Amino acid sequence: MTTVAILGATGYTAVELVKILLRHPQVKITVLTSREEIRPVSAVHQSLAGRLDMPLENLVPQEIAKRAECVFCCLPHIASAKIVPELLQYGVKVIDLGADYRLNSAETFEIWYGEKHPDPARLGKVPYGLPELFRSKIAHADLVANPGCYPTSVILPLVPLLQLGWIEPADIIIDSKSGVSGAGRKPKQTTLYSECNENISAYGIGTHRHLPEIDQILSMGSGQSVNVIFTPHLTPMDRGILSTTYSKPVKQTSQSELLAVLRDFYQNEPFVHVVEHLPATKDVSGTNFVHLTVRVTGGRVITLSVIDNLIKGASGAAVQNFNLMFGYPETTALI
Amino acid sequence: MTTVAILGATGYTAVELVKILLRHPQVKITVLTSREEIRPVSAVHQSLAGRLDMPLENLVPQEIAKRAECVFCCLPHIASAKIVPELLQYGVKVIDLGADYRLNSAETFEIWYGEKHPDPARLGKVPYGLPELFRSKIAHADLVANPGCYPTSVILPLVPLLQLGWIEPADIIIDSKSGVSGAGRKPKQTTLYSECNENISAYGIGTHRHLPEIDQILSMGSGQSVNVIFTPHLTPMDRGILSTTYSKPVKQTSQSELLAVLRDFYQNEPFVHVVEHLPATKDVSGTNFVHLTVRVTGGRVITLSVIDNLIKGASGAAVQNFNLMFGYPETTALI
Amino acid sequence: MTTVAILGATGYTAVELVKILLRHPQVKITVLTSREEIRPVSAVHQSLAGRLDMPLENLVPQEIAKRAECVFCCLPHIASAKIVPELLQYGVKVIDLGADYRLNSAETFEIWYGEKHPDPARLGKVPYGLPELFRSKIAHADLVANPGCYPTSVILPLVPLLQLGWIEPADIIIDSKSGVSGAGRKPKQTTLYSECNENISAYGIGTHRHLPEIDQILSMGSGQSVNVIFTPHLTPMDRGILSTTYSKPVKQTSQSELLAVLRDFYQNEPFVHVVEHLPATKDVSGTNFVHLTVRVTGGRVITLSVIDNLIKGASGAAVQNFNLMFGYPETTALI
Amino acid sequence: MTTVAILGATGYTAVELVKILLRHPQVKITVLTSREEIRPVSAVHQSLAGRLDMPLENLVPQEIAKRAECVFCCLPHIASAKIVPELLQYGVKVIDLGADYRLNSAETFEIWYGEKHPDPARLGKVPYGLPELFRSKIAHADLVANPGCYPTSVILPLVPLLQLGWIEPADIIIDSKSGVSGAGRKPKQTTLYSECNENISAYGIGTHRHLPEIDQILSMGSGQSVNVIFTPHLTPMDRGILSTTYSKPVKQTSQSELLAVLRDFYQNEPFVHVVEHLPATKDVSGTNFVHLTVRVTGGRVITLSVIDNLIKGASGAAVQNFNLMFGYPETTALI
Repeated sequence: MTTVAILGATGYTAVELVKILLRHPQVKITVLTSREEIRPVSAVHQSLAGRLDMPLENLVPQEIAKRAECVFCCLPHIASAKIVPELLQYGVKVIDLGADYRLNSAETFEIWYGEKHPDPARLGKVPYGLPELFRSKIAHADLVANPGCYPTSVILPLVPLLQLGWIEPADIIIDSKSGVSGAGRKPKQTTLYSECNENISAYGIGTHRHLPEIDQILSMGSGQSVNVIFTPHLTPMDRGILSTTYSKPVKQTSQSELLAVLRDFYQNEPFVHVVEHLPATKDVSGTNFVHLTVRVTGGRVITLSVIDNLIKGASGAAVQNFNLMFGYPETTALI
Repeated sequence: MTTVAILGATGYTAVELVKILLRHPQVKITVLTSREEIRPVSAVHQSLAGRLDMPLENLVPQEIAKRAECVFCCLPHIASAKIVPELLQYGVKVIDLGADYRLNSAETFEIWYGEKHPDPARLGKVPYGLPELFRSKIAHADLVANPGCYPTSVILPLVPLLQLGWIEPADIIIDSKSGVSGAGRKPKQTTLYSECNENISAYGIGTHRHLPEIDQILSMGSGQSVNVIFTPHLTPMDRGILSTTYSKPVKQTSQSELLAVLRDFYQNEPFVHVVEHLPATKDVSGTNFVHLTVRVTGGRVITLSVIDNLIKGASGAAVQNFNLMFGYPETTALI
Repeated sequence: MTTVAILGATGYTAVELVKILLRHPQVKITVLTSREEIRPVSAVHQSLAGRLDMPLENLVPQEIAKRAECVFCCLPHIASAKIVPELLQYGVKVIDLGADYRLNSAETFEIWYGEKHPDPARLGKVPYGLPELFRSKIAHADLVANPGCYPTSVILPLVPLLQLGWIEPADIIIDSKSGVSGAGRKPKQTTLYSECNENISAYGIGTHRHLPEIDQILSMGSGQSVNVIFTPHLTPMDRGILSTTYSKPVKQTSQSELLAVLRDFYQNEPFVHVVEHLPATKDVSGTNFVHLTVRVTGGRVITLSVIDNLIKGASGAAVQNFNLMFGYPETTALI
Repeated sequence: MTTVAILGATGYTAVELVKILLRHPQVKITVLTSREEIRPVSAVHQSLAGRLDMPLENLVPQEIAKRAECVFCCLPHIASAKIVPELLQYGVKVIDLGADYRLNSAETFEIWYGEKHPDPARLGKVPYGLPELFRSKIAHADLVANPGCYPTSVILPLVPLLQLGWIEPADIIIDSKSGVSGAGRKPKQTTLYSECNENISAYGIGTHRHLPEIDQILSMGSGQSVNVIFTPHLTPMDRGILSTTYSKPVKQTSQSELLAVLRDFYQNEPFVHVVEHLPATKDVSGTNFVHLTVRVTGGRVITLSVIDNLIKGASGAAVQNFNLMFGYPETTALI
């Protein structure tokens, strides 16, 4: 049995994490924190009524560390990196669902996030929490950087093709479509129902903070410098990301050949399913699964992949990492 | 040609009003105001790009009156009643899309809106802007109180049946379902996409401010004191209200008899269509039409009526009133 | 370990059932049938890709009984009752998710379903699969009639109030709002996306087949003849039912008194949560939970209750019944 | 005053066309046809209740030509081309909203539509009904081929950049997102609400019939052979297309330079607005407008454009063509 704390428990990622952990036979949630909402968690998340009877508390790291062996940080950027060093010092393991430990360079972090990183010495040493690529490092880590939702959706189809030399690292175009929950629970005009419903639009072209994260992991995965073009779109649905990528084949190839490459690469992965049909976000909604496929047309390789942005794109991946870090079967609570 | 001003031009009602007025051959929009957004209207409402090139301005009533013969107030409650007296004094006509002049009693207003009414002397003398019931008064008025969206949807089916003695004024139950745009454009957690989508819930049972308005107009329409039960529901759609009402027949009757009563009552109304099928909100979406029908089952009379809450429930009705007040054909810009 | 068959495995109820059963540690799915789609189940339900590798087969009851100890029937009405007798004869237990065994009277069945019942002798002897009311009968049954989705949502809030004498059995009005998945997966114009989206409408007033089922169970539960008025509405969402009911208190009462009555009645029920706030369908989406509350206003008692129509309203309830029939903890695979 | 017929009046395109034409002061709808639904049009389209009281009729071309000066064909492919020659012979003008006269080559038509073209001699001589490119040809034509919805959304942003030499004709990638109404009103499992809602997926990669149409018009517009990659996506909304295109600049350029190019090209077009912000489908929903913009990032030119697929992508464009063909102001009934 492992005791766990969730910091920043008022958002969509956190409530999803709570629900997954409530199904985990070896987990006891002992701490839920919030700086603003000091009331029962089921008052903030009515879906937890009768399921979790706990207060939200505003606690310092030392108190958290006394009550929990593992801490999930669902905090805004910078906020995690300000307390993670102290938490680690008290001997707890930390899974950061935010962006603070994903990038390897403090300079890059500062460029994209506009502030100095509070814990620069750790950057580059924290495993990126995508078990399909970094499983053994995650298993031995005290701190894991849980991936961004968009990066998960594009790294999984592209890394095998890059790494095994099937597509060129230059000139990769990524056209992603995400549900609205990825934008968080803080009231903003842009995420009002009457703005998003019956509407699709692009945003953050060339400026989305997941762009350097994608470039970094694709570069690591391929052993070459990769700089993608990334266009995220806000789509009228709660959950789900579909990423459509366009790249150039290194040599002449076919759909069946590349499907075989992907199937082979992911043959032992419990959560990645290479499918022949064109995947739909609804096929993986509410699950930790990834469905992906590939097409070859007009001299281009097109990959299509779908995830649930709140699960494989956030809280499900976090529990997958948790299972690895604490020696539980990787799929516990996730299937 | 009539010059018009729209006060409080940043919300959903106002942009809908702008679009209707742009189709009106006898209207020139000369003023758009906002207290907070001092920038081009098309920056706030991107759907107006290339269609209306005007600034939002923060103006005092005197300046507004210099430039416009008619003022549409799309302001929060109390805000209208603070400036309407001055506007009227300058000789402009005013259509208030808010709630300030709907109730006949300053006491009732204070109970439901929690503040003293700034212009109590006018209450009870301002026509309620539902042309189907109060056409001639509206045509001669300088100030009209545009109805609330829910009230419009329930008054139209119920008043004929009450007035002509077909249903009992006691024990009327109204179960209404509204799209989210009725909740306005101000960011709130409760109207975020991820809260409203894939979700339906009731709200404001016994406390919604449209309740006294419904009671007042049904009482006026029936000549008897009416106190309804009113349960509004927030429904995952942009627009539309469906109101289902349950009342008791005074005597034995039938669906065909009551359909005939309604058809007769509304036979000359351009915007009210009595239909035999069960109406759907989508049938009137984007229009100023009302579709309504009636059923008799289990000893109860059930009416069902649909409107577009932003048009017949707000801006379309306002233009209908405008046409009456300025002597234009009532359906101008609305069909 | 129990082997189970799912008959009629191509619809929404069946795929939901498969997903719940895949999480059940004591279940092995051994048979999936379809009369029309003889191909892998994951070709029909792409969400099962990589999760269940089984064919859909067209089998006779004898073959089914050889391979499964429990049969879940997700068949159209009449179809179940034609094969259930034979299945029971072979010694398997059956949970019928359809309507064939819900009504106690063959005459009533024929009136509402337009055909003679193929197995009339069993009617009135089959437990209604709502464990909250009929737990011990279900536990000892070989055949259980899984409740309809609307009935579940209205019986649970109303039976305690009727049984304990708080509301009058006459003059109960039920206004229900359902997501579209309840209408099934067979292509129909009325359930096309472009018809249902941005739309709400009533249907089947006085004619919906869940009406006699509601009347029967409320009558059984209250010991008095109950005839409700039932207005279902099609709501633009995948899942969820919200039922708002209006009834008359027998004596003067209050919200807090009736909340206490409901809390007391359901205090030991794992899936029924009496809440103080107004419940929303999204709060229980994807779960077997029921959230319900009560209000007293304008001389009426109003109950509001929400379920996921595909889970507590169908497949979750079926697994709850299965657990009772086979001696597994009632909440297995459901929490 | 011009009398018009609409053939195939039961679908979404036709009802949209009816609504636009009802606002046209110089049009009288005299014929509505259907081969299957011989009942009042308002029974098939309930939104027309009280607005258009006409029967659907099954008529031969000669009868149609007696009653109408202009025929709008909203028929399946092949069906139009079978009757258009006869209609033209009787002296009526025809606007074909289907695909029969869009392609210049009977061979290409047969490859993509799987059947021999019934009227091959006319191919290549019928103006493509995009007034922004072919206005004067349309004005003098008796038959116009109304463009496909996807092609309209991609041709408008790309043709100026191709024609004026800013982007390379090779290697153009088009990632389009469409609402579901584009798939028509015929019941299909893939367009059921419960399949499309909360879901996005690609379809028809390399096989969509709008692909050769896009290639042909881009080639005509640029004077060079263009072969695009085209990935359409089904998006959970009723209406709207957003097309995101990726192409290579011929020389170094910037966003502001290309915005100026587009603004200059479309400066006199009443329906095309070049905007600086990223356009959203909702901004043009219910209108005949096109909003488009351009970005330059990562060595690629990205255009983004939005239309309402049923209006500028179908019925609005048809009326725009009608106005040109009959000498009415081009924007009549469309603003």
